[in-house]
Amino acid sequence: MAGVRPVFYVSDGTGITAETIGHSLLTQFTETTFVTDRIPFVDSVERAHEVAEKIRVAAEAHGVRPVVINSCMDADVSAALAESGALMLDVFAPFIEPLERELEQTRERRIGLAHGMVDFETYHRRINAMNFALTHDDGQSVDYNDADLILVAVSRAGKTPTCVYLALHYGVRAANYPLTEEDLEHDRLPPRLRPYRNKLFGLTIDPVRLQQIRQERRPNSRYAQFDTCKREVAAAEAMFRAERITTLSTTHTSIEEISSKVLTTLGIHREMF
Amino acid sequence: MAGVRPVFYVSDGTGITAETIGHSLLTQFTETTFVTDRIPFVDSVERAHEVAEKIRVAAEAHGVRPVVINSCMDADVSAALAESGALMLDVFAPFIEPLERELEQTRERRIGLAHGMVDFETYHRRINAMNFALTHDDGQSVDYNDADLILVAVSRAGKTPTCVYLALHYGVRAANYPLTEEDLEHDRLPPRLRPYRNKLFGLTIDPVRLQQIRQERRPNSRYAQFDTCKREVAAAEAMFRAERITTLSTTHTSIEEISSKVLTTLGIHREMF
Repeated sequence: MAGVRPVFYVSDGTGITAETIGHSLLTQFTETTFVTDRIPFVDSVERAHEVAEKIRVAAEAHGVRPVVINSCMDADVSAALAESGALMLDVFAPFIEPLERELEQTRERRIGLAHGMVDFETYHRRINAMNFALTHDDGQSVDYNDADLILVAVSRAGKTPTCVYLALHYGVRAANYPLTEEDLEHDRLPPRLRPYRNKLFGLTIDPVRLQQIRQERRPNSRYAQFDTCKREVAAAEAMFRAERITTLSTTHTSIEEISSKVLTTLGIHREMF
Repeated sequence: MAGVRPVFYVSDGTGITAETIGHSLLTQFTETTFVTDRIPFVDSVERAHEVAEKIRVAAEAHGVRPVVINSCMDADVSAALAESGALMLDVFAPFIEPLERELEQTRERRIGLAHGMVDFETYHRRINAMNFALTHDDGQSVDYNDADLILVAVSRAGKTPTCVYLALHYGVRAANYPLTEEDLEHDRLPPRLRPYRNKLFGLTIDPVRLQQIRQERRPNSRYAQFDTCKREVAAAEAMFRAERITTLSTTHTSIEEISSKVLTTLGIHREMF
């Protein structure tokens, strides 16, 4: 049935796993408009009863059965949620039994583990990588020896968000090199980057989009003129081609996709946080 | 069987959904050591055959059956992967049919949708929120009127990573207020924050941990002394109590958990990116 459908991401932890898989599922159903709500930290049967009541209220208000994407590990909590009458999709249930059989062990029924990890070493690596990304933003005072990779692009092509994402989610030390006007007068790599060829990844962008972004940042500047954007992008792309630097356009690419492609291209294997 | 087990996150997109749910599942099985590999952008049967070969090689090398956490949408791609002989856990399959029945529509078989969204408005909001977090880091030149929320804490208690996470994943404009020594001489809110009481969230941290973090940043400074850390944390906590500011310790809490709790406490509802 088309129309508006309430969806609840319910979790005993942050709700990130439930929302991630739920979002992927819902994008497959384009005829329905979903109104979503995340309800994290549902870690007792009591709390689950309150949530079930909230779901029932939404069912009444919308006149339609809600969908619950549930990542709670406790069977009693899940049962209490199910009393709401919603369609229950339990994101772990289908996989637990095959894994138990394959691994010949019973899973631990620990709650909210996935994003609650607090291992100091891991946390440290993550925060250090982020500090690295932030202090080495826009190529200031970088020692590229310490970098796992270097994103090269003209100003505002998407380097910073990608560096921060790579740090936060993969603990990768990602540095920036913003191509200056002077760099762009040559079609070879800036001398500073030459020793790090195997760490380089080029980003490019549609000049129309670049113009929009720069216009918002510095309205009516030469920097934001379409001609400037077009010239800079063309020069950067020519340089990437001449130097055989793998390049990706950020125009129609999410930060997640860019990050994933950068890691794959450079052969960097890290577990996600 | 205990021991080392190879796990592959295989996806036609970034692999983030597969890795997120896979990671949650694997943390439930503590007797096995998993070696994981993410293989994104598997979007053809040809590519799937290559990947299946890689999985077979890993099976040989480890002398054990690998586990594949698969988020590929195409049935032929999944079938080609299954020829590897691995235990196949398909993260979407169990939910598609119940959703099709409930929504009375057939899903669209589009590939790699979940993290490939490029809606300009959404992207824009996300990037703007991140620029906001970065330019308003450490309380410099902030107009708190523009902030959705303000994290208040002593230096190095976890404000910046949380602000950046909230921006990247929820498009929330999160500002920082670092408590200065002067602020900490009083047990009331600094005057600048008083108009924004309903946007405030306090972070605290174990002084021992804080000392470790500060020591790494500015070795052997007064700033990094244990006494300084202890005094600052105690004063900040006293102020949060006196002002009834909701507070969370970051010592044993992941960035995801902190972010989720901050949003829930302040009643901010946003869909995740």
